[in-house]
Amino acid sequence: MIIGFIGFGKVSSTLTKLIKSDDIIFVSSDEARSSNTISNLKYHNVEIKDSFKEVALISDIVISANSPKSAVDVAQKYGEYVNGIYLDLNNVSPDTTSKINEHVENLVDGAIIGKIDSDNPVLYISGKKADKLLFLNDFIETKKISDKIGDVSILKLLRSSYTKALSALLIESYEIAKNHDLEDEFFDILRLTEGDDFKEKSLSRISNTLKSSKRKSEELEEILDYFNGHDLTMVKAALEKLNQ
Amino acid sequence: MIIGFIGFGKVSSTLTKLIKSDDIIFVSSDEARSSNTISNLKYHNVEIKDSFKEVALISDIVISANSPKSAVDVAQKYGEYVNGIYLDLNNVSPDTTSKINEHVENLVDGAIIGKIDSDNPVLYISGKKADKLLFLNDFIETKKISDKIGDVSILKLLRSSYTKALSALLIESYEIAKNHDLEDEFFDILRLTEGDDFKEKSLSRISNTLKSSKRKSEELEEILDYFNGHDLTMVKAALEKLNQ
Repeated sequence: MIIGFIGFGKVSSTLTKLIKSDDIIFVSSDEARSSNTISNLKYHNVEIKDSFKEVALISDIVISANSPKSAVDVAQKYGEYVNGIYLDLNNVSPDTTSKINEHVENLVDGAIIGKIDSDNPVLYISGKKADKLLFLNDFIETKKISDKIGDVSILKLLRSSYTKALSALLIESYEIAKNHDLEDEFFDILRLTEGDDFKEKSLSRISNTLKSSKRKSEELEEILDYFNGHDLTMVKAALEKLNQ
Repeated sequence: MIIGFIGFGKVSSTLTKLIKSDDIIFVSSDEARSSNTISNLKYHNVEIKDSFKEVALISDIVISANSPKSAVDVAQKYGEYVNGIYLDLNNVSPDTTSKINEHVENLVDGAIIGKIDSDNPVLYISGKKADKLLFLNDFIETKKISDKIGDVSILKLLRSSYTKALSALLIESYEIAKNHDLEDEFFDILRLTEGDDFKEKSLSRISNTLKSSKRKSEELEEILDYFNGHDLTMVKAALEKLNQ
C-alpha cells in the first residue's frame, strides 16, 4: 500500500513514525518544497517523487495536511488525479470541507484530537469511504463518526465552542474569586467534583485563552456564524467576555 | 467534650456516625420536636435535654443545621447562651451569615461539600475560632479557609455560580450536538480532555438542572445580586439560558 503526503509538517511526519508496517510505502514530492522539508522527507524515509500529481496518481491514500488556507487549493489542484482515498487533515470549517468535497472523489474528512505527538492522539474520520481507513487503528486510535462529509468538522466546532466558553467561564470565576482572596480555595473546592487536575488545567486554559484571545474570538465568531439559528446564549457571552 | 445539635436532620445524624470518640458526648433536645426526630435522636445515641437553651449552655460546640430559613431565628434564640463555639452548617448566603454573626459570639461559618454520606465529604470552615474545630479532621476532612466569617459562604456561591453556568453551557452544547446527530460523539471527543466520566457527569448535570431550573434560576439571581459590581457576563448568560 502507498500512502502519499501533500504537505509534510508535524502531522505528516508524526504519522510516518506511528504507521510502522512493511506493507506500507510513504511517498511525497520535492516539487517547490524548501530544503528543510526535503531533508525532513529523507529523514522519515519518504520516497520523493518529481510531482504531487504523480503522488496523487500512485497513492492508495493521499493525505492532505497543509495550512487551513491552502486546503481547498490542494484539493483543486490534485483531487482529480487521486484514484484512492483522499484524507483531509487540515483544520478547516464544515463549509470549507464541503468545498474540498467538490474537487475530490473519495474524500474522508479527518481530524486528530489531542496532540499528535502525545500518548493518546485520536483520529476522527467521516465519509462514505471512512471504513477503509479503520486499519489505521493498528497504529493510531481511529474512530469513524459517520458517512457524512463534514461531520468531523462539525464535531471539532462543537468541541471548540464548549472548551472556549468553558475558558471564558473560568476567567470570570477566577477573577471574582481573586477579588475575594479565595482563588486557591475556589480551585480546591471544585477539585472535589471536577477532578484532581482542576487547578492546573484551569490555570493553563485561562492563560492560553488570554494569550491568544484575539484568535479565539475570531474562532468563536466563526462558530456563531456556522451554528447560526441555534440558541447560542453561552457562546455569545463567551465572545463578549473575550472581547472585553 | 459535649457537642450539641440544634436541628437533627441528615447532616447532624451523619455527623454523629462519623464522629466516633469515647471523649465526645452528643446532646440535643426534644423541645417541640416531632416523634420521628425524637426516635432518630435515640437511635443515634444522642442525650436528650429538656430545652435547646440547656443544649446551648452546656455544649462545647453547638451545631446549627436546620433549614436555611430558620438559621437566623435559631441564632437569635440560642446564640446568647452558647459558651463554646457555634458552628453554623446551614446553606445560607454571606449576608445571612453576617446576620447570624450579630447574635453569636464565637461563630464558625461552615459548609459540607460533597454529599455528607459520600466517601469524601469535606467540611470547610472560616472564622477566628475555626482552628478549634480542626480536631474534626480525625473524623471528617476539615479545612479552614480563613479567619473571616462569611468566606465559606462566599466560596459556596463561587462554586455554585461556576457549576450552574457550566450546566447551562452543557445544555446549550448538547442541544446543538443533538441537532446534528452528534451527541454521543460530542461526549466521546471531550472525554479525551475532560475525563472518562464526562458523559455520565454531564448528562446528570443537564437533567438535574432542567428538573429544577426554577430553583437554580433563583440561586443564580442571588449570586448576581451578591457579586454585583463584578463582571458577570457568563453567569448572566446562564440565568438567561435557564429562564428560556
